[in-house]
Amino acid sequence: MSSTPTAGARPDEVRRHNRTALLRRLHVVGPCTRAALATELGLNRSTIKALVDGLAESGVVEERVPRARSGAGRPSLLVLPQPLAAVVLAVDIRVEQVAIALVGLGGQLLGRDSWNLRGRAGEPAEIITRIIESTRLLTEELGVQVVGAGVSVPGVVRRGDGYVHEAPNLKWTDVPLGDRLTGAFGVPVRVANDAEIAALAEHLRGAARGSLDAVYVSADIGVGGGVISDGTTLRGTAGYVGELGHIVVNPDGRACYCGSHGCWETEVGELALCRALDLPEHSPRGIVVAELRALSTDPDRVAATLGDFTRWLTLGLITIVNVFGPELVVLGDLFTALPPALVTDVAAAIAERSLVSRAIGGTRVVTSTMGADVKLIGAAELAFEPVLDLV
Amino acid sequence: MSSTPTAGARPDEVRRHNRTALLRRLHVVGPCTRAALATELGLNRSTIKALVDGLAESGVVEERVPRARSGAGRPSLLVLPQPLAAVVLAVDIRVEQVAIALVGLGGQLLGRDSWNLRGRAGEPAEIITRIIESTRLLTEELGVQVVGAGVSVPGVVRRGDGYVHEAPNLKWTDVPLGDRLTGAFGVPVRVANDAEIAALAEHLRGAARGSLDAVYVSADIGVGGGVISDGTTLRGTAGYVGELGHIVVNPDGRACYCGSHGCWETEVGELALCRALDLPEHSPRGIVVAELRALSTDPDRVAATLGDFTRWLTLGLITIVNVFGPELVVLGDLFTALPPALVTDVAAAIAERSLVSRAIGGTRVVTSTMGADVKLIGAAELAFEPVLDLV
Repeated sequence: MSSTPTAGARPDEVRRHNRTALLRRLHVVGPCTRAALATELGLNRSTIKALVDGLAESGVVEERVPRARSGAGRPSLLVLPQPLAAVVLAVDIRVEQVAIALVGLGGQLLGRDSWNLRGRAGEPAEIITRIIESTRLLTEELGVQVVGAGVSVPGVVRRGDGYVHEAPNLKWTDVPLGDRLTGAFGVPVRVANDAEIAALAEHLRGAARGSLDAVYVSADIGVGGGVISDGTTLRGTAGYVGELGHIVVNPDGRACYCGSHGCWETEVGELALCRALDLPEHSPRGIVVAELRALSTDPDRVAATLGDFTRWLTLGLITIVNVFGPELVVLGDLFTALPPALVTDVAAAIAERSLVSRAIGGTRVVTSTMGADVKLIGAAELAFEPVLDLV
Repeated sequence: MSSTPTAGARPDEVRRHNRTALLRRLHVVGPCTRAALATELGLNRSTIKALVDGLAESGVVEERVPRARSGAGRPSLLVLPQPLAAVVLAVDIRVEQVAIALVGLGGQLLGRDSWNLRGRAGEPAEIITRIIESTRLLTEELGVQVVGAGVSVPGVVRRGDGYVHEAPNLKWTDVPLGDRLTGAFGVPVRVANDAEIAALAEHLRGAARGSLDAVYVSADIGVGGGVISDGTTLRGTAGYVGELGHIVVNPDGRACYCGSHGCWETEVGELALCRALDLPEHSPRGIVVAELRALSTDPDRVAATLGDFTRWLTLGLITIVNVFGPELVVLGDLFTALPPALVTDVAAAIAERSLVSRAIGGTRVVTSTMGADVKLIGAAELAFEPVLDLV
C-alpha cells in the first residue's frame, strides 16, 4: 500500500486502465472467454463487450467459437490476442553472446538471431550497431515493425533511460544503451538488469507464476538476483535494486572489484565454482556443467568438493530469505546444474536457520526450468509493459 | 509497475480514490488551498470543489480565509483537516515499556499514557488487557471514539490479521494480538513490526520525507529495519519483510536464537554494544547512552572500543545498500547515540565499498531526529491508512 499522497484519477484514465488490464490478462495468461474476463477483472459484461469490440475492431484481438463446448446455451466466444498486433524486440546481452528475438502479443516467439562475442567483448558501440542491424534484417524478413524493445544487461542499469552505469563482466562503464537504441528504433526501449529480467520471466511464465513473494538468483561470471515482492518486480526509483551478488557473505573473503571483500559473487559465482571443481577459471561453460553433473552421482564428493561453496550459497540465501520473506527461491543459469542433493541440503539449512522462512511456513527452493531463453522472454515482457497501454 | 494482470476500476472507485488522495494530502502535509490541491493532485477545480464541499459538510475539513494574503484577487480558501473528525489509537509495545496515544486527523497527538514492564514482560494477556483499559480511560477523558488502531511490536508480525508469530525479545510466540484488539475495539486494527513502523514515520514526517528509496535501521535489544522502496513501505504479501537484524554479517559469530550465527542483531544490537563498552549485558539504557556520549569526545577510544562493532555495522549496511539502493539510511533508537565520527566513518566506507551507492550518486547516512515517539507516530499512520478511505 502506498503511504504517500497519490494523484487523482480521471474517467478516461479508468477506461484506459481497464483496457490495459484486459490486454495484459490475454497477453500473459492466454485466450479467454468474455465471461471469464468479466469475472477475473471484476468488471460487468457490458464494459467487457465494449472493450473487446474496440480491440477486435482495431485487430488487436480476434473472437472465435471455442472448439469444445460444455453445457447448453450459446457458447461464450473465445477472445484471442493477435500476435502481429504488437511485436516487440527482446535483446539478451551476455558476456559471451548476444541474442535477439521478435516476440508477438501473447508471447509467441516470431524470429530470432544470435552471435558470439568470445574474445570480442567490451565494445559497446560494436554490439549496439550489430543489434540494430540484426533487428532490421529480422523485421524485414518477417515484414513487421516493432513497437517497443526490452534489453537484458548483466550490470547496474538506471531504470529511467536505460543508462548502463557499470556492467563489470562485460567491461562496460557509462554506456547510454537505452538512448542509443531509442534513437535507432524510435520506440520505447527499456533496459534492465539481467537477473531482474529473469525474475520477471519466472514470475509471469515460469516457476514463480502465481507467487506473490519470490526471489530469483542466478550465477554465471556474476551473481545476481531479482525480487518479486507482493506480486510486483521490485525496483528502486533509480532502478538500482537487488544487486544480490554484492551481499557480503564472507568478511574474510576475496577482494571483489566493487570495493568489498567476500561478496556473494566472489564466493558462489562461476569462477568460485571453477576453483572448487579444480578447473581453470574461465573454463568453458560446458566443462563446468559436465563436472557438476559428474559430481551429482557421488554425494561424498559433493560435500568434499563443494562444502565451502555450499556454505556461502546457504549464508547468502538465508540473508535474502530473512530480508525479503519469499515463499519461493528459484535458482537459475549455472545454479540449475548444481547437484540436486546440494539444493536439498541448502533448502533444509534455510528451514533450520531462517526465522522468516519458519514464520511464513517455509521457503521452497527450486531450479529454473525455463532454459536458456529465460532472459529473452523476460526482456520481451519488459518491452510489453508500456506497450500494452498503447496498442 | 505491476507486472501481473490487475483488476479493472469503476467510476465510484475513482471518486473514492480521489477523495482518499485529497484527505491523505491534508492529513500528511497539512492545510492547503483548493488551488494547490488541484495542482498537486492533478484534478480540475470543480472536482476539488465537489470533494472539499462534501468533506466540509460532514465536518472532516474546515475552510478558512488564510491569514497572510499575497497578490490581488479573491483569496483561495485554506482547507484544514479537523483533528476530531477521525481519531486513531497508536500503541508502541517495547521490551521495557508500553505507550499508547490518541492521534487526530492531521497527526495531532490528543492524549497519551504509558507504563513500565520492567520485570513483568512476557505476559501478552496482561499487556493486552491493560492496553484496552487505558484506551477506555483515555477516550472517556477526551470524549472521543477511535476509528482505527495501529500497533508497533518488536517482532515478526503477519500483516493480514496482526498475528505475532514471534517477538523474541518480549518472549512472545503465537499471539493473536490483532484479533484480540479488533474484538475489544470493534475497529480496524493493524499490527506491524516496529522498525517497519518507524520507517513509515520517518518517511511521512521525519528525515526520509520526500525520499523515494530509504532504509531505517535501529537497535535496542533487537536490530530491525524498515524499507521505503519507490515511495512505498515494503512489505511482503505475508507481511514478513525486512528482518534486517538477521542478515548474517559474521559467519563465525555468536549463535543467534534464530538458528543462525553472527546475525547483524548479535553483532550490533544493544547487548553487543554493552559488551564492547565493557558494561554488563542488559545495563540500563541510560548508562549505555552515557558511555557512548562520553566516548564521542575521544576519537582514539572510539576506534579502540567500537572497532569490531563498526566493522559489523558497516558490513550490514553495505549489504542493505547493495540490496535496496537507498539514497538515505536513517539510524534510529540506540544508534542515534553513536559517536558522530563513527557514523561519518561508516558513511565513508559505504561510499568506497558499495557498487550501488556509487551508481545512485551516493547514500546519505543520518541519525533520526524524531525522538522517542517515532514508533507511536508511525503506529498512528499505520492506523490512518485504511481509515482515510472511510472517514
